[in-house]
Amino acid sequence: MEKFSYLQPGKPAVFKDQFVAKVNECVVPYSEGEKGDVGLIGLPFSKTSISLSQASDAPRTIRSCLSGFSTFSGERDLDYEDVKIIDFGDVLTHPTDMEESITRLHLSVKEMIDKNVCERYIMLGGDHGVSYPSIRAFRESFGEIGVIQWDAHHDVRNLEDGGRTNGTPFRSLIEGGYLKGEHLVQIGIRDFANAKKYHEYTKEKGLSVYTMADVDMTGIVPIIKKELDRLSKLVDIIYLSVDMDVVDQAFAPGCPAIGPGGITSRELLSSISAAASHEKVKAMDIVEIDPSKDFRDITSRLAAAAMLRFMYVQ
Amino acid sequence: MEKFSYLQPGKPAVFKDQFVAKVNECVVPYSEGEKGDVGLIGLPFSKTSISLSQASDAPRTIRSCLSGFSTFSGERDLDYEDVKIIDFGDVLTHPTDMEESITRLHLSVKEMIDKNVCERYIMLGGDHGVSYPSIRAFRESFGEIGVIQWDAHHDVRNLEDGGRTNGTPFRSLIEGGYLKGEHLVQIGIRDFANAKKYHEYTKEKGLSVYTMADVDMTGIVPIIKKELDRLSKLVDIIYLSVDMDVVDQAFAPGCPAIGPGGITSRELLSSISAAASHEKVKAMDIVEIDPSKDFRDITSRLAAAAMLRFMYVQ
Amino acid sequence: MEKFSYLQPGKPAVFKDQFVAKVNECVVPYSEGEKGDVGLIGLPFSKTSISLSQASDAPRTIRSCLSGFSTFSGERDLDYEDVKIIDFGDVLTHPTDMEESITRLHLSVKEMIDKNVCERYIMLGGDHGVSYPSIRAFRESFGEIGVIQWDAHHDVRNLEDGGRTNGTPFRSLIEGGYLKGEHLVQIGIRDFANAKKYHEYTKEKGLSVYTMADVDMTGIVPIIKKELDRLSKLVDIIYLSVDMDVVDQAFAPGCPAIGPGGITSRELLSSISAAASHEKVKAMDIVEIDPSKDFRDITSRLAAAAMLRFMYVQ
Amino acid sequence: MEKFSYLQPGKPAVFKDQFVAKVNECVVPYSEGEKGDVGLIGLPFSKTSISLSQASDAPRTIRSCLSGFSTFSGERDLDYEDVKIIDFGDVLTHPTDMEESITRLHLSVKEMIDKNVCERYIMLGGDHGVSYPSIRAFRESFGEIGVIQWDAHHDVRNLEDGGRTNGTPFRSLIEGGYLKGEHLVQIGIRDFANAKKYHEYTKEKGLSVYTMADVDMTGIVPIIKKELDRLSKLVDIIYLSVDMDVVDQAFAPGCPAIGPGGITSRELLSSISAAASHEKVKAMDIVEIDPSKDFRDITSRLAAAAMLRFMYVQ
Amino acid sequence: MEKFSYLQPGKPAVFKDQFVAKVNECVVPYSEGEKGDVGLIGLPFSKTSISLSQASDAPRTIRSCLSGFSTFSGERDLDYEDVKIIDFGDVLTHPTDMEESITRLHLSVKEMIDKNVCERYIMLGGDHGVSYPSIRAFRESFGEIGVIQWDAHHDVRNLEDGGRTNGTPFRSLIEGGYLKGEHLVQIGIRDFANAKKYHEYTKEKGLSVYTMADVDMTGIVPIIKKELDRLSKLVDIIYLSVDMDVVDQAFAPGCPAIGPGGITSRELLSSISAAASHEKVKAMDIVEIDPSKDFRDITSRLAAAAMLRFMYVQ
Amino acid sequence: MEKFSYLQPGKPAVFKDQFVAKVNECVVPYSEGEKGDVGLIGLPFSKTSISLSQASDAPRTIRSCLSGFSTFSGERDLDYEDVKIIDFGDVLTHPTDMEESITRLHLSVKEMIDKNVCERYIMLGGDHGVSYPSIRAFRESFGEIGVIQWDAHHDVRNLEDGGRTNGTPFRSLIEGGYLKGEHLVQIGIRDFANAKKYHEYTKEKGLSVYTMADVDMTGIVPIIKKELDRLSKLVDIIYLSVDMDVVDQAFAPGCPAIGPGGITSRELLSSISAAASHEKVKAMDIVEIDPSKDFRDITSRLAAAAMLRFMYVQ
Repeated sequence: MEKFSYLQPGKPAVFKDQFVAKVNECVVPYSEGEKGDVGLIGLPFSKTSISLSQASDAPRTIRSCLSGFSTFSGERDLDYEDVKIIDFGDVLTHPTDMEESITRLHLSVKEMIDKNVCERYIMLGGDHGVSYPSIRAFRESFGEIGVIQWDAHHDVRNLEDGGRTNGTPFRSLIEGGYLKGEHLVQIGIRDFANAKKYHEYTKEKGLSVYTMADVDMTGIVPIIKKELDRLSKLVDIIYLSVDMDVVDQAFAPGCPAIGPGGITSRELLSSISAAASHEKVKAMDIVEIDPSKDFRDITSRLAAAAMLRFMYVQ
Repeated sequence: MEKFSYLQPGKPAVFKDQFVAKVNECVVPYSEGEKGDVGLIGLPFSKTSISLSQASDAPRTIRSCLSGFSTFSGERDLDYEDVKIIDFGDVLTHPTDMEESITRLHLSVKEMIDKNVCERYIMLGGDHGVSYPSIRAFRESFGEIGVIQWDAHHDVRNLEDGGRTNGTPFRSLIEGGYLKGEHLVQIGIRDFANAKKYHEYTKEKGLSVYTMADVDMTGIVPIIKKELDRLSKLVDIIYLSVDMDVVDQAFAPGCPAIGPGGITSRELLSSISAAASHEKVKAMDIVEIDPSKDFRDITSRLAAAAMLRFMYVQ
Repeated sequence: MEKFSYLQPGKPAVFKDQFVAKVNECVVPYSEGEKGDVGLIGLPFSKTSISLSQASDAPRTIRSCLSGFSTFSGERDLDYEDVKIIDFGDVLTHPTDMEESITRLHLSVKEMIDKNVCERYIMLGGDHGVSYPSIRAFRESFGEIGVIQWDAHHDVRNLEDGGRTNGTPFRSLIEGGYLKGEHLVQIGIRDFANAKKYHEYTKEKGLSVYTMADVDMTGIVPIIKKELDRLSKLVDIIYLSVDMDVVDQAFAPGCPAIGPGGITSRELLSSISAAASHEKVKAMDIVEIDPSKDFRDITSRLAAAAMLRFMYVQ
Repeated sequence: MEKFSYLQPGKPAVFKDQFVAKVNECVVPYSEGEKGDVGLIGLPFSKTSISLSQASDAPRTIRSCLSGFSTFSGERDLDYEDVKIIDFGDVLTHPTDMEESITRLHLSVKEMIDKNVCERYIMLGGDHGVSYPSIRAFRESFGEIGVIQWDAHHDVRNLEDGGRTNGTPFRSLIEGGYLKGEHLVQIGIRDFANAKKYHEYTKEKGLSVYTMADVDMTGIVPIIKKELDRLSKLVDIIYLSVDMDVVDQAFAPGCPAIGPGGITSRELLSSISAAASHEKVKAMDIVEIDPSKDFRDITSRLAAAAMLRFMYVQ
Repeated sequence: MEKFSYLQPGKPAVFKDQFVAKVNECVVPYSEGEKGDVGLIGLPFSKTSISLSQASDAPRTIRSCLSGFSTFSGERDLDYEDVKIIDFGDVLTHPTDMEESITRLHLSVKEMIDKNVCERYIMLGGDHGVSYPSIRAFRESFGEIGVIQWDAHHDVRNLEDGGRTNGTPFRSLIEGGYLKGEHLVQIGIRDFANAKKYHEYTKEKGLSVYTMADVDMTGIVPIIKKELDRLSKLVDIIYLSVDMDVVDQAFAPGCPAIGPGGITSRELLSSISAAASHEKVKAMDIVEIDPSKDFRDITSRLAAAAMLRFMYVQ
Repeated sequence: MEKFSYLQPGKPAVFKDQFVAKVNECVVPYSEGEKGDVGLIGLPFSKTSISLSQASDAPRTIRSCLSGFSTFSGERDLDYEDVKIIDFGDVLTHPTDMEESITRLHLSVKEMIDKNVCERYIMLGGDHGVSYPSIRAFRESFGEIGVIQWDAHHDVRNLEDGGRTNGTPFRSLIEGGYLKGEHLVQIGIRDFANAKKYHEYTKEKGLSVYTMADVDMTGIVPIIKKELDRLSKLVDIIYLSVDMDVVDQAFAPGCPAIGPGGITSRELLSSISAAASHEKVKAMDIVEIDPSKDFRDITSRLAAAAMLRFMYVQ
């Protein structure tokens, strides 16, 4: 086939430095037989958010931010350009049937896992409600599961008042028998952002809860290391669930439920690096970014940086 | 009770010109026994929109724009400060159960009508999906109904693909037997904004459809007058359904589905004045404004002006 | 009275989790005989700002941010839902007569205090000029007063050049004999943000001044504790005056006079907690937020969090 | 003096096409003895606005928009590059003393007129309150004055409620004896934007009032021509007072009191051209643009275009 | 290959109404042997703009707006879903070598034409500078060329002052012998937006120039029809060059050189329809949209609507 | 000459506190014979940026931010109002000829130095490409040069792929023989922001490179001090090159290439203070701020604060 000189139909025209590998260049759509290192799936669903949210648009913006990063770590003097990311695409949800949409999310994560072509998986929300079908799918495929949750909120609301909203995923998982309370670690919980009843619920169920005061006193990395050590003896797989509103509103202005007094971007990145280095950590979701509320995609860019910390470990 | 000099607890501090009556001052919350002229209800629901929409926030912004208008018409030399608007509040919808929410909208409009304390009613959406429960409620209370719909789109999509979305209200009404095709008038339909199949559906069901080319050639007020004349012989009550995206994107930048080539703000206002002057016209809804996408509430302000044209007739 | 199913006329429709108490639900408008814990008053005045400011709109946005917080502290395992906040409303100022407006602010704070129904008071500005009438009112009612001022600026400009602007409140208080220099503590003063003449004035009058370099070296909480200890022996009441521009522009982008190199949001919150725990601290104002310049009400939200730290102490 | 190759200290570096004369290049600061065609003065004052306004910033943005226009009219085949505009600068107002500021505005316009070096004058507001001192100055210097006012509002509020606000200039002028009612023409007055009481005041005082319905029926240019003809027989000088909110919000989104149903940009420009061509028209003010609310300075750019229509006549 | 239930790797998840064909679904990337109706090419180049411009980003936004339109015209009762659009992609330009970039644009348009697989072509700029290489390519392939230019400006600046900027394309074409003056029609030229020297140049070279006053008096469609008639006797092919700043700033706020007093969106669309219906019209470019300055892609959406008017003719 | 009371033609009307000296008041345009302390020049050039950038507009915004700072340091109890800043203006670049523009930048910096009227110099970019002509000019005038570069990126890309872009300045300087590798210090280099090839280039050429991990472990001020000590023994002059994207995106949201995990504003200011106090440090450039992407000029304001730290040393 005769080619064009400066046109590549179907591809955008982008300046290319011959020596730079961008992370997005390592992402390939899944096709039968394709094997890779990290599986990526978009869970673009946020209609069950209590406050109206366009978090369903975040898989698009986070993916797009990957082109802002290269694959090379100077600190480790390591180039990760051979880490292949298999993109399974975004789940098609239903416009008006919420239960149907949750079923589709669950089924799609399972179908991805069943392909058995990757070592690790990244799920991009959506609101925090997507963690329920996602964690359930991993539980069903990999055995006993432990979860480390970065979050300002407990997310264990009752199910009577509003059904399965973005405030209920961990309640749903615990009540459903998919996750034991003592296998759930919550980090970054903020004062005046939760209710007494749910605080008591976490105690009753045996969750490990670390507030911002704990982060201030102990440091976030030591907390992670200690809990990884504990969890790894109890479970088969560890799943990271990152609600971006754990980050202070100055560093993550695009979350629906922003607030002051959260962790910094450096604390987020270093704690994810610490967690990702453990071999039982196999999956991570990143949720609660509403790109329509963000400034210059700052929050999606931070999420993309978090993905790199998860994907690029020795 | 001893009063304060410059404080009124529970009320905002607002400069008041003793001779100016603002429209918002004529709005009172409904209370048992209260009678008025115009009933106002908010239908803050847009989760069934095909594209994510915050149109559910529009009842708040439109109400708030009422304070930017006075009750006096210099052109008619008439002050409407005695037209009392009874505000029934906003319907509480369900966070995750869409069918339940539609049921609540229908029930609430009925409960408002059943109070029987007003002459005319204004429903503030929300997306266009709210017209289905709203028009159905009026049909059930007042008999045979005619509808004049300002819209760029037919809104008669099939129900299989996505359930009752904001693209289906008139399909739902016709199929449900609440509205006859020949009692539905559509004005402002735009080229390249609809599908052949739905165009054929409107023909088949006998709708009166006026495109932008018709508006250009005939003028919007003559079309309204002709159709009012026709409808009024066939129905007991006429309902105006105003999808703000009938207006050109320069004049209504806050609609989810903006586009060029629509009617101007003057055409909107004059056509509503023409319609509202007919005695069988008893109800109007205004839908599809997403305040989060607007500029300086321009679109909500236009909607408030449209309310005035509906409420203030001789 | 026959009620509606899903309508509450006069109230917005808001999703309610039965176990969550939001801070705004603890706010009640003042009515004769009503007693509470914290008195809240809006001083929506910023026409005397040197640069045009819409800080007068901040009482509205800060109040509105209260709905984003719950009453429960997990760190202390204490729920403050019984702390009642009495809202006295916003002072009605005069559109063109500045002196008259200052008089009204002073009178209104006095009238609030005279009701004698609360333990503590929060004044929401407005620009920093409102601290003059406010502190004066507290001085007149409670005796010798000490003030801790969070601020990048001294705010002791001369009165000849521009009258009582937002740059003069502490000059006015000292010259007027309402506040002794040695009873005024200034924290967070920034380099290249003040004039030599006013620096000398603070020395001459015996103020305790802590610059950002002091905050860096000593820590903000130790400074607060030391000064509380000193002040409490000298005065009858301590008043906190929080000019939000003490905070770095990344954390408080909505102040008129933003700048780099200020304190972080965590430093603000922890220092207010430290101050509020002292029993002689009875009043706090929060000033210099212009919501029209803010991003997603980040600065107002931080102000609301500061209110909580002031209100919710053992 | 040895020059630089590509530097001109004190001047911005701007690309220059040798054949294009920009309007801003025809503006020179006033200096003793300098004579010109059009005198330009900024009246940057809006603290007396009822709603907070940054209209005081408009002289800066409008001047800056002049660089977007050239001096050449292709339609008339005439280049106006020799029309010299003398810029007298902006009046320094007082930060807190409103009466003093109004006195300064009046004095400054008089001082400009007294230099007697221009044929015509342009005053850039500021809010509409500046027209009171400005028109008064022209009345005192030139004799009996007629005013054509482009406006959605009458601006004849009572003076008791709020003093001399931006809603009172024409009341102040009439009551002060500076302007006779029958010498005042108001064009573009909108329904539901004024009060009955003030409507009656305009009748009582004999104003010529044209509503938007009049503009629709008669056309704005014929109205202008008719009134110029009438006025010119009665007065010595005619002054144009252009409140930009006469323009529809889609064309002038930067006015504090925007609204739908106003005139278009073409109607504004053609009507000013028509008025400016009359020899008794000697002065024009342009008011009520708040650049902080505008989009891409669209409203200031329209104001600059209006200036050109006033300045560039045969 | 085993498929997923709700995932399509490599494609975004989009709700699909089975009866609606969107315009973007008719766009296919060029591949060897592929034949179609309309060829589409992006010329993402604006570094030669006199004022910094991100018009190079417009091909992306305009293409993306195509998904907002369907292929059906109700007015003609015709569905154009079989009109296939072949997308040749975007030309890769050089980051620092401007001449090289212009050469690449010219070469790429030629390579597209040489494939000889389409009837008509659309070029998406970029700034107006791209019309020089583009029109030149058409001239070289198709013979004598006529151009109808929608524009507020003549774009015939001299080449000495700044080289080949976005102000020189038609000068370059005329001087280069690619276009005869009498074969160039300019519509929408605005007063005070051009220089005398260039006005004279257009006269000297025999251009047909229509100002906004001409549009006002004669109507834009009659002008188009008259000039098509004239041109079609003189040339082999007619090329439409649409500089979006011909449109009033209220309807096209995303152009770098916005201004008041231009044509409306309806005038743009109807005039392009009129031109496109002529059989000699084979190519159109749309230039001077800077998406970073736009509001909600209003200007790109108008451009997409203009594409439809060009593509969908009987 | 008879003066005006409140007008100063040619100067903006600004409120002046008689005791406050603003930094901008210490800036005077260069004129023959004028001597000062700090020379200031604008290098408004960013057309060679790989991604489109309006960094060329930053000299204007940074200068304008100087009026937000006073000359007084309370921490040192020193007023710098006598430090005179000579403004040489902005270099006029060529619209389309990039090489010519680089030549002009180089020539202009040399012409400024040759005037020999200042002790220190500040260059305001523009993108980082301007450091190549600027540093070259200093090298040619002052002898062996050392450079401390604050940057997230190495900026040593190859020159074949895109010519002299903003990614190549230090490559150009090293290859051109103007700067030795061991005389270049890079601080703040970020992981996943550079390529392996360029990392190796920096090693090969002997650069001193400090990553964010180094900043975390060692602290930025100790690094600066150590390197100043080393460099000062090897070179005649030290030049600071500050690419603002070294700062975290939360503190510098206006850089084209923003990202998370960078230094804070306090780290930037303290490190510049530390560097500026060394006597061999004679020049600083500040680059890569695109004001069109910023929020409230936060990034330009931080740059202005950095200028103060450089200018105001004992």
